[in-house]
Amino acid sequence: MEDVISIAENPLLREMCHYVLTNHGKRVRPALCLLAFHLLGGEDSKRAIDVGSAIELIHNATLVHDDINDEGEMRRGAKALYKEYSLGRSIVAGDFMFALGFQLMGTTSNDVVHFVISAAAAMGSGEFDQKKYERNVAADEAQYLKIITGKTARLLECAAKCGAYLAAPDDLESVEKVGNFAYNIGLSFQIIDDLLDVIGDSKNTGKLVGNDLVEGKPTLPTIYAMQDPTYGARVREIFENPSADYSDAAEAIELIKKTDSIDRCFALAKHYADLALKDLESFKDSSYKQSMIDFANFIVSRDR
Amino acid sequence: MEDVISIAENPLLREMCHYVLTNHGKRVRPALCLLAFHLLGGEDSKRAIDVGSAIELIHNATLVHDDINDEGEMRRGAKALYKEYSLGRSIVAGDFMFALGFQLMGTTSNDVVHFVISAAAAMGSGEFDQKKYERNVAADEAQYLKIITGKTARLLECAAKCGAYLAAPDDLESVEKVGNFAYNIGLSFQIIDDLLDVIGDSKNTGKLVGNDLVEGKPTLPTIYAMQDPTYGARVREIFENPSADYSDAAEAIELIKKTDSIDRCFALAKHYADLALKDLESFKDSSYKQSMIDFANFIVSRDR
Repeated sequence: MEDVISIAENPLLREMCHYVLTNHGKRVRPALCLLAFHLLGGEDSKRAIDVGSAIELIHNATLVHDDINDEGEMRRGAKALYKEYSLGRSIVAGDFMFALGFQLMGTTSNDVVHFVISAAAAMGSGEFDQKKYERNVAADEAQYLKIITGKTARLLECAAKCGAYLAAPDDLESVEKVGNFAYNIGLSFQIIDDLLDVIGDSKNTGKLVGNDLVEGKPTLPTIYAMQDPTYGARVREIFENPSADYSDAAEAIELIKKTDSIDRCFALAKHYADLALKDLESFKDSSYKQSMIDFANFIVSRDR
Repeated sequence: MEDVISIAENPLLREMCHYVLTNHGKRVRPALCLLAFHLLGGEDSKRAIDVGSAIELIHNATLVHDDINDEGEMRRGAKALYKEYSLGRSIVAGDFMFALGFQLMGTTSNDVVHFVISAAAAMGSGEFDQKKYERNVAADEAQYLKIITGKTARLLECAAKCGAYLAAPDDLESVEKVGNFAYNIGLSFQIIDDLLDVIGDSKNTGKLVGNDLVEGKPTLPTIYAMQDPTYGARVREIFENPSADYSDAAEAIELIKKTDSIDRCFALAKHYADLALKDLESFKDSSYKQSMIDFANFIVSRDR
């Protein structure tokens, strides 16, 4: 990915791309793409690596813009790009990384490009839905699942489908199954991620605990707790309050922990992880299948 | 293009795309794409129309983001998208339109996608270069040409090359020539556009006169005037001043008009229009060639 950045003629633009891409995340999407490719018998992995990297670039581009949209201060333990550089430049740098992602993908098939574009469009819708339910006590589980589908699950699905398709373009049934696996993993992954905002350790997550509450993001732990007969009213009050700070968030978190919300979140995350494992059942055993099973199990047992 | 917007599931997102695309500009890029297609003997124009529309979508996406980056208030006589809606949502809506553009292009060849991606990457660099020389008296003609190459000329070149390539993928020499035509037209077009900020009528341009000066943008009329032995010092002073307002801009404009700057700008615009016409010489006469010649002539005689 570092090679592709060198296309940028402007040194500051290169520096900003470098800032984002070296502070890398877990590289879940390239990993899924490559695993799916090998699961379906793919051999020469060059194209799968390119497509996986392209998806990671596009993912990072959207994170740069999402941080601006959500006024997020930190990303992966470092300052968000727009906080380190300027807002305007960060918008353009995000666009540039988006374009580079498509460039890296350009030599593959139109179907693959189509998978990625659809996921990118879904991400836009997901961000809009999330904004719609910001500080909005009408947020419920169904809306939450719609939001995280656009925000997370569709791009993971896309990464897996691309890898599978590159290996077996004629076996669309298997491509769909691997896609469903990743889709369900994506839902599970995001539920746990949102849970870590409530019960996580900021040393591990790189984000301040209670951040989603301060930002008024409609996440599942809050949604469930708002339905609690005893503590729900106060949680709703804090969630609705546009000037809620980290001490209000800490109060809300204490209340959330008194409800059954956290258990319900884990149960739903487990439900989707189980669905994901079911999607793999028909594939013959291999080390790649085992890696995908491990991956699914890892998701629901992430460091609390 | 309206069809493609309907992919957006979120109604507000659809509304925002609609806001941008119905307040359409001159549709120069689709026109160039289609003219180039027919100039090279293309017949069934469906793909050329799709690619031209895709480029227009991508162009509009970058304008949405550029307005945020440049803090531009107005666009084509209406409020900039981020002024009418929110900044965060406008970033995401721009991304979405960007993705839709690539989606619309997805069924064409990889070469076409590659042309568009390269132009999109160049646009990013152009915006960065423009920022670098904002309120910077070191801006000169060479830097200015580099900025407008990224900002304007490369995407027009791309539109023409795509159209030409779709008609005659094996005649790369002609594809390059048509591309050069559009590239030179692009430089000419932008020089005149920047001149209209100084000598234009806001009723025709849809922008306030002196806007570029207030924003500190390094445009050619200002760059030339800053070199004037008599009036240059005061123009530089205003250009450097971060709190310059429209009355300062009006003063600078009066000074610019006293120098040879405007004549020099017209001369350079004409120079590039002449180069563009030269690029067309080797093509056999046709109504399409005549339209392109008319187009080049129109550029340098735009309503002052």
